[in-house]
Amino acid sequence: MRKMPHIRVAVDAVVFGYRDRKLNVLLIKRSIEPFKDSWALPGGLVLENESLETAVERELKEETNVTIDYLEQLYTFGNVDRDPRNRVVSIAYFALVKPEHHLIKADTDAKDVAWFAIDDLPNLAFDHQKIFETAKNRLKSKLTYEPIGFDLLANKFLFSDLEKLYTTILEKDIDRRNFRKKILSFNILEELEQKVSEGRGRPANLFKFNQKQYFKLLKEGFLFDIK
Amino acid sequence: MRKMPHIRVAVDAVVFGYRDRKLNVLLIKRSIEPFKDSWALPGGLVLENESLETAVERELKEETNVTIDYLEQLYTFGNVDRDPRNRVVSIAYFALVKPEHHLIKADTDAKDVAWFAIDDLPNLAFDHQKIFETAKNRLKSKLTYEPIGFDLLANKFLFSDLEKLYTTILEKDIDRRNFRKKILSFNILEELEQKVSEGRGRPANLFKFNQKQYFKLLKEGFLFDIK
Repeated sequence: MRKMPHIRVAVDAVVFGYRDRKLNVLLIKRSIEPFKDSWALPGGLVLENESLETAVERELKEETNVTIDYLEQLYTFGNVDRDPRNRVVSIAYFALVKPEHHLIKADTDAKDVAWFAIDDLPNLAFDHQKIFETAKNRLKSKLTYEPIGFDLLANKFLFSDLEKLYTTILEKDIDRRNFRKKILSFNILEELEQKVSEGRGRPANLFKFNQKQYFKLLKEGFLFDIK
Repeated sequence: MRKMPHIRVAVDAVVFGYRDRKLNVLLIKRSIEPFKDSWALPGGLVLENESLETAVERELKEETNVTIDYLEQLYTFGNVDRDPRNRVVSIAYFALVKPEHHLIKADTDAKDVAWFAIDDLPNLAFDHQKIFETAKNRLKSKLTYEPIGFDLLANKFLFSDLEKLYTTILEKDIDRRNFRKKILSFNILEELEQKVSEGRGRPANLFKFNQKQYFKLLKEGFLFDIK
């Protein structure tokens, strides 16, 4: 008979925020070996009596104190040698945080916590660079077929903010007129009375994402698609 | 300090085959408790020195002897009470098998193994019904944006087979003329000289999927899209 394998189960989270018109990721500085003082994705071992989602939420709370607006399972990383101590299988999650919730505070296992622009990341512990890349690709592809971009914007935003978010994350220019026409044709945005001045131009209206309307349309077969 | 959690790590596979113009899934009959004599997805515990993919391939070989044509990670199921014995987290995989590889043979842990049409499934052990549903949804959505349908068809097929596969799995009628025009416009199919008689109609040409050409087009930015 085979001997019972000893494999530990962890969760890790790639938490994205959109700050100063750049995509950022939330990292913690490790206070223990291995990779002591290295930056890493927040995460840790799953407890016996909690679900995977509960474990991610607990670890994020403990290590970063961040409030999550969107959470989904990303991928499970299980290479034999991904942790120098023991065999650890990590279920990675993908999370989005609105600017209203960007405030963070290091705690317990983490020595420090900070937002990093994704074009200026430090070396990451373990296989966290690979987990991060997987999450970045998921975000890029999801942006074109689900309205998850709104979970990176403030509740009220200018249309130009949405446009900029798309060009930044998709890393390509978009035809501004077509983009505006297409998004507005979906009828999932509410144009508010409130106006804000943008640079030297005339004041522009603020918008709000109407999630209730989106879910209603979804049931009727609507496809969000901005490829 | 928290006590070290004991969580076991397993893999399970949802293996699809397309038989007699119906989508089928590969099940094994359990020879041990719990759920002894119930039908279940093939799978088992991951060994300490093997990757998750190696574990799935080993378990499929041991329990069903099937040869896989396409394999990808599906989702990780980790509810606290999904196994009555111990806490077990299962990384589920999604696999496709061409008709050339439909031959199966029960072995080791499995008392029996069989293909079941998905509209006529027995009660499944554990949370395997939920895992199966997740895989079915993944297959339905992937079929519209990746040419994975060809991994369910024989190497040489009639265009009407491809059409039937899509209507069966997507569970809706398709406009046959548009479908044919669209798929052929992608330039990823090779029309062979070889002809086959279909029912009372005149003989129709066989087709072959040109995977090499597909990967070439993919690099150039081609999007397979048949929504």
